[in-house]
Amino acid sequence: MTPEPSRPAPGPAPRDAWRRGPSFHEMWHGLLPVGRSPGGGYRRHAWTGADAECRAWFREQAAARGLAYEVDRNGNQWAWLGDPEAGDAVVTGSHLDSVPDGGAFDGPLGVVSAFAALDALHERDARPLRPLAVVNFTDEEGARFGLACVGSRLTTGQLTAEQARGLRDADGTTLARAMERAGHDPGALGADPQRLARIGAFVELHIEQGRTLAALPGDHPVGVASAIWPHGRWRFDFRGQANHAGTTRLEDRRDPMLTYANTVLAARKKARLAGALATFGKVAVEPNGVNAIASLVRGWLDSRAPDEETLAAVVAEIERAAAERGKRDGVDVTVTRESFTPVVEFAHGLRDRLARLLGGAPVLPTGAGHDAGILSAEVPTAMLHVRNPTGVSHSPAESAAEEDCAAGVRSLAGVLEDLACR
Amino acid sequence: MTPEPSRPAPGPAPRDAWRRGPSFHEMWHGLLPVGRSPGGGYRRHAWTGADAECRAWFREQAAARGLAYEVDRNGNQWAWLGDPEAGDAVVTGSHLDSVPDGGAFDGPLGVVSAFAALDALHERDARPLRPLAVVNFTDEEGARFGLACVGSRLTTGQLTAEQARGLRDADGTTLARAMERAGHDPGALGADPQRLARIGAFVELHIEQGRTLAALPGDHPVGVASAIWPHGRWRFDFRGQANHAGTTRLEDRRDPMLTYANTVLAARKKARLAGALATFGKVAVEPNGVNAIASLVRGWLDSRAPDEETLAAVVAEIERAAAERGKRDGVDVTVTRESFTPVVEFAHGLRDRLARLLGGAPVLPTGAGHDAGILSAEVPTAMLHVRNPTGVSHSPAESAAEEDCAAGVRSLAGVLEDLACR
Repeated sequence: MTPEPSRPAPGPAPRDAWRRGPSFHEMWHGLLPVGRSPGGGYRRHAWTGADAECRAWFREQAAARGLAYEVDRNGNQWAWLGDPEAGDAVVTGSHLDSVPDGGAFDGPLGVVSAFAALDALHERDARPLRPLAVVNFTDEEGARFGLACVGSRLTTGQLTAEQARGLRDADGTTLARAMERAGHDPGALGADPQRLARIGAFVELHIEQGRTLAALPGDHPVGVASAIWPHGRWRFDFRGQANHAGTTRLEDRRDPMLTYANTVLAARKKARLAGALATFGKVAVEPNGVNAIASLVRGWLDSRAPDEETLAAVVAEIERAAAERGKRDGVDVTVTRESFTPVVEFAHGLRDRLARLLGGAPVLPTGAGHDAGILSAEVPTAMLHVRNPTGVSHSPAESAAEEDCAAGVRSLAGVLEDLACR
Repeated sequence: MTPEPSRPAPGPAPRDAWRRGPSFHEMWHGLLPVGRSPGGGYRRHAWTGADAECRAWFREQAAARGLAYEVDRNGNQWAWLGDPEAGDAVVTGSHLDSVPDGGAFDGPLGVVSAFAALDALHERDARPLRPLAVVNFTDEEGARFGLACVGSRLTTGQLTAEQARGLRDADGTTLARAMERAGHDPGALGADPQRLARIGAFVELHIEQGRTLAALPGDHPVGVASAIWPHGRWRFDFRGQANHAGTTRLEDRRDPMLTYANTVLAARKKARLAGALATFGKVAVEPNGVNAIASLVRGWLDSRAPDEETLAAVVAEIERAAAERGKRDGVDVTVTRESFTPVVEFAHGLRDRLARLLGGAPVLPTGAGHDAGILSAEVPTAMLHVRNPTGVSHSPAESAAEEDCAAGVRSLAGVLEDLACR
């Protein structure tokens, strides 16, 4: 892997160096093979070889368009048109990393569409009055180190450099060590208020991760986000006693698998009753032997709800159900909140301006966290969603129609022109 | 690791070379540190470095006593007193491998007690009329390759060489490759009827894996096994659809974690109603991400019952419950029987002779599989159980009192003298 050192902000990118780059189709197919696992899903986890390939791709896209390339102190990549120091910049982009065995669209669609939208502006000879940038936020999915949106959280100061450096992957490698190995200086990590102060608006385009647009009457390839549900991750540790599965009487057992199983079903029920979401998708078992009663089952709860009060109530009910069943099973239950993101209301003015500009596009909330949600605390932020016919996401089956992706690029180009050229 | 090639049967071990070896205490403490994990449990899995250390220990014990050392075609270790070819041999021993994070007693107690019992015979100047051997059966627990009693199953022909060579561990390494790396020729694997024909009786001493002896009125440090419950392993594959945990409506999900959880609870209930045992102790999830609905949950069921009819009924009911819930969840369920061991009735004559010899020791069934259970199909076989005060097994908390271990050695020495010297 070529070391790719963090760099200071580049000088202004001369406007006359600006040119069109590879087509949407070429960009898409350039990324497709990167980090693809034999099952067809993607494993582009932060600071791995696949991530480095994605980052190299980003740098090439910047170069192909005569944009000034920059890596900020937190490892996020930027491609600038115009002078970054001029202020009131219009920024678009998303992320290139993936969940384990994720799909091709979640993240990359926003980055590819950003470059394609710049090309569309170039083609129509648009004259930006403000700097424009494409960004690739690092480690959005948190697949490797367990915390989502690390790049944007660091930039806004929602995550301290010390906390970030100490994050560990499943092999015990710290984020600091992983960054170092990838040629980045973890000593430079930290909040970046000057950078945020230079941004006038951030617009993230993303595939919808649900079927709301597809289910609406009429034909709506693109929607505008209104809000992101509050959401968080809670680790449930169920501790019982390892024992022989073939000889221990049922009444002598302290089997944490039973408590876990009961909690999985309780979570679903509590979420359903509250109109919320609750999911156990990750489990780790010790000793995880076929003929051994588990000593420890660790399950991670992902939960989201329309508002913070509902979310807190749902999680409290799941915790209570776990503790009650744990008493019956002789199993200790401890719950640790690993992350929490409050409700995000996107800037109303920007949201309404985009919806009008896109001819009355639907305005919809979403349950998924995004870098846009993190940035919205500091910068006027909006999101565009591209229709997902099956609603499937975080899976190799994730898809969007080619014409909907093209509509996404057109919409984003219109938004950028409106924000940067008027 | 020093290669340790399979060897042909050794020549007769001269009786006058026979001498006493290290004490029980010395042997026990020699083994204690081998393959111990930071949590205090043991990870002595077949053909690993820890296993090689255990095997080297066995070889040293044979050498210390002037016994003829031999590795059979299937990797089992033997230490012979007298001529192996003479026939009607009296064999004792057990295994040295462990489950993941297992205890110190399960297996090693039988091997250490076997060497100590030989020393006791030497001390009382016993004169064996028949060959005596101590055996260490390889890969009894099946912790690495998923099938228990590989060494004894191969020897009796219950597992073919081809099946064995193709077994894979979690990393995809075949048993053949693992054996090769440890210096053994997997090409030599196969049934060994001549070896079995030379054995007149096999007696395995083992820690009890339950509290039956401890719960009996009176003081019974040692019991005799009557039978082993029929038991097996079934792999349940629950296949749903990976999706985003934060955006997929509950009603659009096909979440296999729910079906798995329901099946875990159903298994417990069906087993309780039938007086059987059913345990899910091992799980593998794909993609196993916090914010991804699982696409696949794989759970392994260990089930046992007093008789084969009850066992079949319990497993069928669990399968039915899984399929029914799977329909509700949109999850496909497939069940694969990975192993099955029919009920084992130990040889009645030998069993009664041992119980009489031990002054009317309790005669009890067990739910645990053992190499003795496999061998009993071909050779008159018996088992001695040493009291386990807590009943805990397959856990670092497994224990037996020092004086009960001593009673085990005395009992085994008495049995060997009775079988070999009269």
